[in-house]
Amino acid sequence: MQPSANYGYGGSPPPSSYGNPPPVSGYGGRQSSSSHQQQRPPAVSRPPPSPAPPNGADPALWPLFKAVDKDGSGQLSERELRAALVNGDWTSFDPHTVKMMIRMFDSDRSGLIGFEEFCGLWGFLAAWRSLFDRFDADRSGNISLDEYTNALVAFGYRLSPQFVGTLFRTFDKRNEGAISFDLFVQSCISLKRMTDVFKKYDDDRDGYITLSFEDFLTEIIRQR
Amino acid sequence: MQPSANYGYGGSPPPSSYGNPPPVSGYGGRQSSSSHQQQRPPAVSRPPPSPAPPNGADPALWPLFKAVDKDGSGQLSERELRAALVNGDWTSFDPHTVKMMIRMFDSDRSGLIGFEEFCGLWGFLAAWRSLFDRFDADRSGNISLDEYTNALVAFGYRLSPQFVGTLFRTFDKRNEGAISFDLFVQSCISLKRMTDVFKKYDDDRDGYITLSFEDFLTEIIRQR
Repeated sequence: MQPSANYGYGGSPPPSSYGNPPPVSGYGGRQSSSSHQQQRPPAVSRPPPSPAPPNGADPALWPLFKAVDKDGSGQLSERELRAALVNGDWTSFDPHTVKMMIRMFDSDRSGLIGFEEFCGLWGFLAAWRSLFDRFDADRSGNISLDEYTNALVAFGYRLSPQFVGTLFRTFDKRNEGAISFDLFVQSCISLKRMTDVFKKYDDDRDGYITLSFEDFLTEIIRQR
Repeated sequence: MQPSANYGYGGSPPPSSYGNPPPVSGYGGRQSSSSHQQQRPPAVSRPPPSPAPPNGADPALWPLFKAVDKDGSGQLSERELRAALVNGDWTSFDPHTVKMMIRMFDSDRSGLIGFEEFCGLWGFLAAWRSLFDRFDADRSGNISLDEYTNALVAFGYRLSPQFVGTLFRTFDKRNEGAISFDLFVQSCISLKRMTDVFKKYDDDRDGYITLSFEDFLTEIIRQR
């Protein structure tokens, strides 16, 4: 246990960092013990580069990229990506998840996703899919409140049931008492980003931060 | 001057409260002096109820409501409203502005806008339109950074040029160096909501607040 585990947020980050997919192996069954002891799994426990390498271009994804690139421009627009990305039940991805992923993987800040960027994005989604399936204990294709609670604990968060409920309802945008894959990813990334900001201000790690008016406004705006 | 004017946020709220339109008269030329001295203009300086009464149903709006209610259900869906609301240059309203307005005026929490709710919403927009026109000094149909800065000062905010720039770029979603009507409204309402939350925590009005981890997360989520 790290000392930080005695207050609001856990000692270990959730399994995604910006631009890196969450580890897809070496993370499942033993999270609750291991996730408090290390920042991320050692490199040797990471998945092999195939089928979706986290960095660089994977030629095997070229046909898929071409199929998504409807106008043949060699770059994927937000609209093209949105048309291509679906959940397990074939519902479309939430538009905000698509925007979030473009922001994360658009390395050259063109607003478009090139082939190399697409390979990164695809690997990231594959890794999240694998995590999602592990936490979807009843194989319903969605994450229930109980499953969500277990996921957040495994990621190292220590949050009150009230707050987890609030978070769950926020991302249960379709009001189904369940969170689909796209919104699970969105919620975990959002929570990670908010936690990172909090840690930045919480120098003494006491679980409280002091903010000026403009700091407060700036941080809220950045989370949009 | 109120004592609170010596730090981050101004003594007076911006001219909109939730569910109430901003005052459309008695607010223009003399804002910079009067807006610091009172919470809102006295009732006598408010506009007459016609053409858009802030509360209750206005029979004159019935034909407009019927025209927007494409499926004749007697209630406006988000899609119907989005199709009907346009800026001065006929661009569509930003989807988030439409959602925000539905949340504000959907008194019965049906997710739909009935006729009475529509009358409130319409009056609110008319009042904002009038304010927007006053701050659009060069009559370009958009708000420039200088015009935006003037508007925020008139609303009683004391913000650094750096932060006003950040806010401006955040709402200049079309990257035009200018903010359209819908995004001007959205930005002012967002700023008002964030300010209200800050004030709630800033008991001693010193311009700094202390937040726990869950407070911080909760407030960010609520601003979404």
